[in-house]
Amino acid sequence: MFVARALGSAYDGGAMHLPAGADVRIDKPVSLNMNVRALGQSATLAINDISRKLSAEGHTVYRLGLGQSPFPVPQPVVEALKANAHEKDYLPAAGLPALCQAVADHHRRRDGVEIRPRDVLVGPGSKELMFLLQLVYYGELIVPTPCWVSYVPQAAILGRHVSLVPTSADDGWHMTAESLISLCELERDDYRPRILVLNYPSNPVGSSYTTDELKELAGVARKFQVIVLSDEIYGPLHHRGEHVSIARYYPEGTIISSGLSKWCGAGGWRLGTFAFPSSLDWLHAKMAAVASETYTSVSAPIQYAAVRAFEGGTAIEQYLCHARRILSGLGQQCVATLTRSHISVTPPVGAFYLFLDFTPLMDHLARRGIRTSDALCSRLLVETGVAVLPGNAFGRPPRELTARLAYVDFDGAKAMAASETVPLDQPLSDDFVELLCLNVMKATRLLADWANGVDS
Amino acid sequence: MFVARALGSAYDGGAMHLPAGADVRIDKPVSLNMNVRALGQSATLAINDISRKLSAEGHTVYRLGLGQSPFPVPQPVVEALKANAHEKDYLPAAGLPALCQAVADHHRRRDGVEIRPRDVLVGPGSKELMFLLQLVYYGELIVPTPCWVSYVPQAAILGRHVSLVPTSADDGWHMTAESLISLCELERDDYRPRILVLNYPSNPVGSSYTTDELKELAGVARKFQVIVLSDEIYGPLHHRGEHVSIARYYPEGTIISSGLSKWCGAGGWRLGTFAFPSSLDWLHAKMAAVASETYTSVSAPIQYAAVRAFEGGTAIEQYLCHARRILSGLGQQCVATLTRSHISVTPPVGAFYLFLDFTPLMDHLARRGIRTSDALCSRLLVETGVAVLPGNAFGRPPRELTARLAYVDFDGAKAMAASETVPLDQPLSDDFVELLCLNVMKATRLLADWANGVDS
Repeated sequence: MFVARALGSAYDGGAMHLPAGADVRIDKPVSLNMNVRALGQSATLAINDISRKLSAEGHTVYRLGLGQSPFPVPQPVVEALKANAHEKDYLPAAGLPALCQAVADHHRRRDGVEIRPRDVLVGPGSKELMFLLQLVYYGELIVPTPCWVSYVPQAAILGRHVSLVPTSADDGWHMTAESLISLCELERDDYRPRILVLNYPSNPVGSSYTTDELKELAGVARKFQVIVLSDEIYGPLHHRGEHVSIARYYPEGTIISSGLSKWCGAGGWRLGTFAFPSSLDWLHAKMAAVASETYTSVSAPIQYAAVRAFEGGTAIEQYLCHARRILSGLGQQCVATLTRSHISVTPPVGAFYLFLDFTPLMDHLARRGIRTSDALCSRLLVETGVAVLPGNAFGRPPRELTARLAYVDFDGAKAMAASETVPLDQPLSDDFVELLCLNVMKATRLLADWANGVDS
Repeated sequence: MFVARALGSAYDGGAMHLPAGADVRIDKPVSLNMNVRALGQSATLAINDISRKLSAEGHTVYRLGLGQSPFPVPQPVVEALKANAHEKDYLPAAGLPALCQAVADHHRRRDGVEIRPRDVLVGPGSKELMFLLQLVYYGELIVPTPCWVSYVPQAAILGRHVSLVPTSADDGWHMTAESLISLCELERDDYRPRILVLNYPSNPVGSSYTTDELKELAGVARKFQVIVLSDEIYGPLHHRGEHVSIARYYPEGTIISSGLSKWCGAGGWRLGTFAFPSSLDWLHAKMAAVASETYTSVSAPIQYAAVRAFEGGTAIEQYLCHARRILSGLGQQCVATLTRSHISVTPPVGAFYLFLDFTPLMDHLARRGIRTSDALCSRLLVETGVAVLPGNAFGRPPRELTARLAYVDFDGAKAMAASETVPLDQPLSDDFVELLCLNVMKATRLLADWANGVDS
């Protein structure tokens, strides 16, 4: 125990001001930053705890909670890491120049956007870059909900202001241009510095914005001088390969966020990227300066390997085509199963998520004592063995009965090897998904049956 | 340019409150956090700029500025990275369990301190962990100077309070127990939360604390309930392999900081570790919680490889023995050369730094217009081609004529291969250093000659 009895004992010099013999205990967390005291008490952790307990008791747990790509890192990228395992030098805080070039080329090629290599910033995950952005920028963050889990806790850690903008199932959980106009006008603050966070294909919905929606949002952002942080980490996992970036329509105000975690299957490698418009070079410079005083630079061998990933080419494209075809087929079958119950769900067009809405069952669930998304997910886990995350964790009201399902509990390497035996111009059979993504299909049926049972 | 003309043009909805046609420009860095505005203007960068310019003009530049290990990553550790290149899963925020175990074992074996694996925290560099510590802990940081370059900028970014405690050349640039007592008593604040940062072997001095000094400091820290952040990243590079941790004498209040950057030659890999006393588990928990909302976890392949490094064994021990013998021999020869001039220097016992004190030449330098450490280092670079860093960057007063020399501008792989041909129980010859670390020896002679020239 870190307890000292003030005064007395070994040290005799000088005057202390405590009553003799008083215990002062600073081993208690009294000296914690108020902004971090509540951190780590999330519903996600609660679900994990119950999952572990159920597994330990011999129950089957379907892991549709954690949003990790099921696929392996593409082999050429793994080989590039091996070939660069000896690289040991500190790299520039903004990133390895060859990687910045490859990222700029990637966005030019895929997104039709001109990015200068000097406007790329490489970080240990795009999450860390978003944190640096919030640390460096003194303004408001506008986040449509449901949103990815970390934007809001980051703002809390830094004591920043976030405006959550609820979207609705009727709008496909999309932010509308009207809602952005309303927000900006209601604030009656023409000089307010603002960043709008758009994430598409979306975590947790799996939907994406149409070109028309992006054009409208771009117009409003330009009008109100809102910087757009465009989180496109699932872009290359658009199921039809048709991702479009808002930077096409708002190049001067858009920061594109990407990284290896999702489309490259390398979540654990920790490498994210921001691509800035040249007009925001001052933001880039300060983020790099803070990087140099914190994580210094991203791991050198990982950066060298990432060059191979962002360079693309046939092997990477084939990998993406197989990943998309599997995810698309699986997502569609999940939706087909769920819509046979009273769970509402938006059909996905990208990524590997479904946002389930149990609101049609609200009265039935209330009779079972289920009145919050936390309660919903805990009960689903105990009664079906399926782990999903509560809507609450994605910025939705605690009493809204929503949940995120990540359809990733399958062996991605095996599924990809099987997909490679089917020519890419053919669809995968229904049996493919049933055979190779069995756990996900089983779990989805369990959820649908549970919902039907609640109803009856 | 990110400029919008408020009102007019495409968007017509709603009332804005600016005069029609007024330019509002938020592309200017007006919305930067005040704490980061001055970042990145360091003397270190200025030295780098001059270095680049001189190199481009064809001049020889001796790079004794950047504190990077000259040695390669030990081959078994590189092999371990290759073998784990496919590892792609997100790891726990606190670290890969096998690595936490290896780090705990490392400290038990090397430092004689009992650490539980659950009390280890792995980060992307110990610098990032120090930043998280300052973010999470709401108290005062006590830093004896000269100190490592990043403690103070980190505190500035976070708006934290730092007490710099100057040490003197007469005390070998060591913090004395008396100065810590004085500080704590002068503050007249018995409940003040405090963290004392001790770095030994020291960057920028290359000295270390004696066992008696550590015992005295431990006694005072215990008395005043000061947490000690013991930055021992150079511990295994104690030239005689005799590093002793203050945790031996203050286990309940010491956090040991270590990592791969220095003793393992893997600065660019970005992996640092904290080992907490069990009584500070609340601090560990909150740092891990913030980690999970920022960098998530350290790169998985790097963590798997780091297990091999911290496990140690014959190959790692041999590597360390050769590194120490080379650094010890080179450090001694540098000191022998410098003391033939009027530059004061403390003989090193670890790491790869010398802290040069030009104060004896103060009057002579003033006559040449050199009145600050920044000016001193700029002039040294231009007039001798030797890049060293100003004492100013290490928390010393700007007008104190001190500088840090990093004796690392040599081919570490070649030197190590040569050392391996000499039995470890024999010293290296003077010729060895002259032959294999020629640039460092040349640079040191240039500095000595310059100082002698100033004097005459």
